[in-house]
Amino acid sequence: MLVNVSRTPLSPTPRTLVNRHRERGQTDRAALDDVLDSALICHLGVLYDGQPVVLPTGYGRDGDTLYIHGSSGAKSLRPGPVCVTVTIVDGIVYARSVFHHSMNYRSAVVLGTTRLVDDPDEKMHALAVVTEHLAPGSWDHARLPTRKELAATNVLALDLTEASVKIRNAPPSDDDEDVEANTAWAGVLPLTMEWGVPESASTLPVPEHVLKR
Amino acid sequence: MLVNVSRTPLSPTPRTLVNRHRERGQTDRAALDDVLDSALICHLGVLYDGQPVVLPTGYGRDGDTLYIHGSSGAKSLRPGPVCVTVTIVDGIVYARSVFHHSMNYRSAVVLGTTRLVDDPDEKMHALAVVTEHLAPGSWDHARLPTRKELAATNVLALDLTEASVKIRNAPPSDDDEDVEANTAWAGVLPLTMEWGVPESASTLPVPEHVLKR
Repeated sequence: MLVNVSRTPLSPTPRTLVNRHRERGQTDRAALDDVLDSALICHLGVLYDGQPVVLPTGYGRDGDTLYIHGSSGAKSLRPGPVCVTVTIVDGIVYARSVFHHSMNYRSAVVLGTTRLVDDPDEKMHALAVVTEHLAPGSWDHARLPTRKELAATNVLALDLTEASVKIRNAPPSDDDEDVEANTAWAGVLPLTMEWGVPESASTLPVPEHVLKR
Repeated sequence: MLVNVSRTPLSPTPRTLVNRHRERGQTDRAALDDVLDSALICHLGVLYDGQPVVLPTGYGRDGDTLYIHGSSGAKSLRPGPVCVTVTIVDGIVYARSVFHHSMNYRSAVVLGTTRLVDDPDEKMHALAVVTEHLAPGSWDHARLPTRKELAATNVLALDLTEASVKIRNAPPSDDDEDVEANTAWAGVLPLTMEWGVPESASTLPVPEHVLKR
């Protein structure tokens, strides 16, 4: 069982205090787990010679640890200060004014310093966590990593101790005068991710864990 | 007409050279425009006291300029070195081995230093670009920004001169031995974003630009 439930509160540090739209800030640690478990990819922010660089990558969560992985040759997979951000857009908020246009979304921002996972057992476990996040069922279905493949892969761990979560899930918030004027439509256009029909590259039947996703 | 077509080649600098999976790197400038025009939000990487911070935000492109906007009080909306990354996940690639699991995706990474847009005409134009990217049709439909709203909004401009684009759009690439063994399914599970049914917050009929999105 890879999914744990955390019961710690989400206590912001000055670096993760929600300043803009404080009403969207979440204080329940479960909100962080929910957002991390619901999104598919993260955006990893690292520092190259004083320049912030943001790269999309897969990840997985196990309890209070977030794992990311990639080629052992990748510069972005070296341990150091990072920001991992996960965002799910749930809809576009059309307001009566351009100014109040917005999005309904769930986002998590995790700050910290990554640790290189070099213990073989933890590394294998972390790869299971990342694989099961990206492609649930694949860890038991596909061929597991060889020693050579493990050597070609870096895994980084990030503690989920310093994080903020923002959620907007509401109709447009227009000014009273614009509501009264009633000259422009307002509402939310929901947005969802939909799985399509599997495109098979195999003579085998499509397995349940793919079909039922 | 807000959308321009650029015919410049995409010439990487050492900072934007694609190192991992070079076959996924694109050299055609049109690929950058395509990715930027297809995604909904970007992830903005900035630097706070030596710590990379990544925040999701709206954006828009006009020719060779990317615009982002936000509250004039937001720390992330001050001019400086940034990375703007845009990612569209098109599917999960299930391989016969865990190691070759992957994603089909389109991503763009833009590096540079942002410029605060203070010319009133450019600022208004930039807000139109950003609004039309998020909610096409809204600039002509909704109430335009007042002077007070403009003062509460910062707009940053970023030149699209230093960027890289990576695209993976292919079936799984398994090792020959795994294909021959034929013990695990392989294929692609496509992923698309779907607009739902508009949730009206108005007595007016849902306008065409929302209905037909």
